[in-house]
Amino acid sequence: MSWTVTMLEWGSLRVEPLLDGITAASALGEQLSATRYTLDAGAVVPEHAHAAEEFGQVLSGSLQLTVGGDTRTISAGEGFLIRGGVPHSAVAQADGCDLLECYSPPRSPAPPHAKEGTS
Amino acid sequence: MSWTVTMLEWGSLRVEPLLDGITAASALGEQLSATRYTLDAGAVVPEHAHAAEEFGQVLSGSLQLTVGGDTRTISAGEGFLIRGGVPHSAVAQADGCDLLECYSPPRSPAPPHAKEGTS
Repeated sequence: MSWTVTMLEWGSLRVEPLLDGITAASALGEQLSATRYTLDAGAVVPEHAHAAEEFGQVLSGSLQLTVGGDTRTISAGEGFLIRGGVPHSAVAQADGCDLLECYSPPRSPAPPHAKEGTS
Repeated sequence: MSWTVTMLEWGSLRVEPLLDGITAASALGEQLSATRYTLDAGAVVPEHAHAAEEFGQVLSGSLQLTVGGDTRTISAGEGFLIRGGVPHSAVAQADGCDLLECYSPPRSPAPPHAKEGTS
């Protein structure tokens, strides 16, 4: 029998360490995926790109986001949509950041370069 | 020149009345879309279905969600993923509900049956 719904109690999902000061919990669908990130103050997501389109929403704290050379600080309650394939990077601000993202096509985040040489 | 990023300051997006006690603001991408719903206490989303897969996150308040005959109450901080094509309905609880959803393929929500006879 195929799935119909998946309830996401984020606190009960497996949390993966991703980068220094960054953890992530993910849920994969067939058309999209969702990841809840927790970033410590000052945590850095180096510039990277992926084919999937990316939606992000800052749940708490704030994030400095750089996309295509343009840098903005995004506060809790605000979001963004990044076209697939566009390089982007981010730095969590002094209050840290809880960040929700959705991707389509679905993807499970991995550290940039983490898979180099392994597949 | 193609787009690279869209910043979503939800408060500055156009808010559309959707159903009694429900408003929505949406941002459309190419692979996915995002909608921020505000539901008054007791507001009802009648059963409906759409081809797009649906991710939801309760930002504040709580929501009683029924999917495939199974009813759950989802509180702020929790989410769900509904397979495309699966009928679902919802009722905002006594504290109302701010709800964030992403869809893939992208869709702009409309009241169930609103487009009947018009296209």
